Formats: sequence, structure tokens, C-alpha cells
Amino acid sequence: MAGSAAGIQPAAIVFDTFGTVVDWRSSLIRELTEFGAARGIAAAHGIGIDWAGLVDAWRAAYHPSMDRVRRGELPWTRLDDLHRASLDRLVTEFGIKGLTEADLVHINLGWHRLTPWPDSVPGLTRLKRRFIIGPLSNGNVSLLTNMAKHAGLPWDMVFGSDLFGHYKPDPETYLGVARLLDLPPGRVMMAAAHNGDLAAARRAGLLTAFFPRPGEYGPHQSRDFAADTAWDVVARDIEDLATQLGA
Amino acid sequence: MAGSAAGIQPAAIVFDTFGTVVDWRSSLIRELTEFGAARGIAAAHGIGIDWAGLVDAWRAAYHPSMDRVRRGELPWTRLDDLHRASLDRLVTEFGIKGLTEADLVHINLGWHRLTPWPDSVPGLTRLKRRFIIGPLSNGNVSLLTNMAKHAGLPWDMVFGSDLFGHYKPDPETYLGVARLLDLPPGRVMMAAAHNGDLAAARRAGLLTAFFPRPGEYGPHQSRDFAADTAWDVVARDIEDLATQLGA
Repeated sequence: MAGSAAGIQPAAIVFDTFGTVVDWRSSLIRELTEFGAARGIAAAHGIGIDWAGLVDAWRAAYHPSMDRVRRGELPWTRLDDLHRASLDRLVTEFGIKGLTEADLVHINLGWHRLTPWPDSVPGLTRLKRRFIIGPLSNGNVSLLTNMAKHAGLPWDMVFGSDLFGHYKPDPETYLGVARLLDLPPGRVMMAAAHNGDLAAARRAGLLTAFFPRPGEYGPHQSRDFAADTAWDVVARDIEDLATQLGA
Repeated sequence: MAGSAAGIQPAAIVFDTFGTVVDWRSSLIRELTEFGAARGIAAAHGIGIDWAGLVDAWRAAYHPSMDRVRRGELPWTRLDDLHRASLDRLVTEFGIKGLTEADLVHINLGWHRLTPWPDSVPGLTRLKRRFIIGPLSNGNVSLLTNMAKHAGLPWDMVFGSDLFGHYKPDPETYLGVARLLDLPPGRVMMAAAHNGDLAAARRAGLLTAFFPRPGEYGPHQSRDFAADTAWDVVARDIEDLATQLGA
């Protein structure tokens, strides 16, 4: 499915982040398992906690929580705060005992400490030589900035959802990047492992690049194994995207 | 005047840009002189154009044009557009003939192509290892992002005035950085070669760092040769700031 994209020359490429650039699921399961063991955190009934189940449930709450903001049921709320509200609910549902407020703050900031996929840093480093690169994520600026410091992501500019007061797939996000970079939408490329994100970016007039992350949801992955339409570039990963764009 | 600042530990350091990080005057005079010669641009009366005088007049229009926005006489207007309006006026005043619209666009974007002071890139590269770094400038995001690509400024995040809809020294700019980074103002340091910028940052609760750029205005420099009060750090330049902060 990889090919050449020699004729396509964006000025800027913005990347979805969770799942596309960083492996949120493995990162959070590993960190929480180690944290729970080191701190002796237990479930109410004294047996082991299903940290993988908690991480999957936490992520499952992601889109519904943002949709409440997108529909206007909640005022603008940063993703850090949506994550925290979901975490508080899940700690009760999973019967987890012994977490202090400092523990909950630390766990919630796990989204700032996610690990990149192996091709992310080398691929982005190559693309940065020829293009303006940044995340365009539903994360807030502080989350994305801390993540970049932790993971070594060499962004030129960080486009957090709090810059726009909108979550993807609202068009204000994609068009907001073009506005801030003073570029026509057609000179900005959205790169993502999620077909739905790209569909919204294309409706807003952006170029599109897809590469799959078939392990993003672990055994629960149910979609986005391949491009579901003819995106402007279809690549294997970020390194292949760099190759196809001549970077 | 340099000292040690071992006890001061910001989480983020934001830099004034024009004059503090880049040498706008020499950069623009050099570029315009070369452009004018290459293109055979002349004054109306056929003799040489005073490009240095035009650059100094262009910069002299900077604060008055922003003040019109700050006082509400103009709606929010990006610095690129304020620069262009001033340039159009000055081209007439200096009697310059033969510039096309493309030439004017190119000249105006000279503010995106400024050259850093010699210590800027090495000093920022050191500081980036320990701190979140970014510009906090009256430039717009596109100007600052293009400048960083051109000059190799290794910012983590670009705080353009268009993110806030305010120009410095409005407190919304300094406090906007703290809000976007989710930090108390006292964990953010403003670094500038201009005492007035630091006074406003301190009023907003930020830490402050001064270093002089005595050549910023060439022969017309009239102030900011030294710190005019006890800023949290007073350094020789950005490399010395890195040394004093242990980076």
C-alpha cells in the first residue's frame, strides 16, 4: 500500500498524537502496573488490580467525554481535566483502595509520559528538516509539551486543543492550524493512524496521510488496520512517510 | 553583573525575541541592501536608498502600531499586518520606486528571516535540556515558527501574540503562557534584553532574567545597556544564563 508522493508538497505536517505518534496503551499499562506494585496498591477485596482493564476503560471514556464538550453539554474543559474525571470514576468502579490525591495527580499525568512508537522520533526528525511539524491533538498544550520533552519529539510548534477551544473532529482545529501558520488549508497535511480524523481534515481542505498502528488497542483493535479511502499519502509508518515525501 | 542563580528553578523560560534572541537591525539592513542592489531598486530621484534609515523607521513604528491595538483603536491585528501597513507608508516616505506586490510581501517577510545573536542557539540548546523554552514575542505564530526554522532556534513551544489576542506588555500574554503550560506564574521565567518587558512580567508574577544587547539599535541605542533593577537573574547573554541556571 506504500507508494510515492513526489508531487505532494505540504508546507506543514501536523500529527494526531495518541496512538499515531505514541503508544498510550502499553505505556500506561506498564507504568500503572509498576506503580501499583511499588506502592502496594490493591483492590478492595485484596487481590490484584486489572490495570490493563482500567487503561482500556479509561481510553473508552475518551471520546464520550470530549463529545460532551463538542455538543455543548460541558463548557470548554481541557483533556487533563476530562481524564481526571474519568479516572476518579474508574478508581471507584475498579474498587481500588489506598490512592492519595498526589497519587491520582501522578497517575493522571501518565498521559504526559507516553512512549513513542519506534519510528516516531527518527521519522519526525527527518520530516522536520523539510517541513514545519507539530502535533494536532486533543491533548492540551501542557500535556503535549511535556510529552515532547519526555519522548524527545522534535516539534516546531505544539497545536493543543486548548488553543482552539475545540476538540477534533471539529473543523476549528484543522483550520486553526492553517490560520496560525498563515497557510492555505491545502498546504497543511494531517497525518494520523485514524481514518476518521483524516476524513474530517479532508473536509476542512487539508492534505491527508495515513499509516496504520494495528497494535494501538492491543487485542481490542477493531478498525483502522488500513486506509479506508485514497488518502493523499498512505505509508507504513512515519519513517516511510518521510521517505515518500523526500525527507 | 553576572552571578549565580542556583536557587532559582523555573520550569519554563520564555524569551523576548526581536533584539533579545535575533538581531533584527543588522539582518534587515543586510537583506534589504542586497535585495535593492540585486533588483536595481532606486529612490524617486535616482540616487541610493537609505535602507538603514528605512529599517530604523520601520522599527520605530513598531510600538506605536501595537499601542493602537492595545488601546482598542484597532481590532486585533497580527504583527505581520502591522509591519506591512508601516512598510507601505515608509516606501512612499522614502520615495522608493519599482517595488511589486511580490517584492513588498518578500520584504515584509524579512522579519521571519532574522539572524540570531551568536550565543542564542548554543545557549537555548543548553537550556532546552533542563527547561521548557519558547519565545514570548509580539510576533505571530507563523512569523516565530518560520524564524525558528530559518535560524535553528530549538523552541519547545511557540507563544505568539495571536494565541492571546494581546501584545506585550498586556498581562494576558505573560499569564497566558502560565495557563497554557499549566504552571503557576512563579514557575515561568521571562528572559529579555528590555527592562520594560521584565517589569510587566514581574507585575504578572513571573520570574525575570535580563541580559543586555547593547548593539540592538546600532548607533541609536539609548537604553537597556544594563539591568535597571534587581531582576532574578542578570546575565551577560543566553549562554551565561544557561550557566547560571546550571544548564
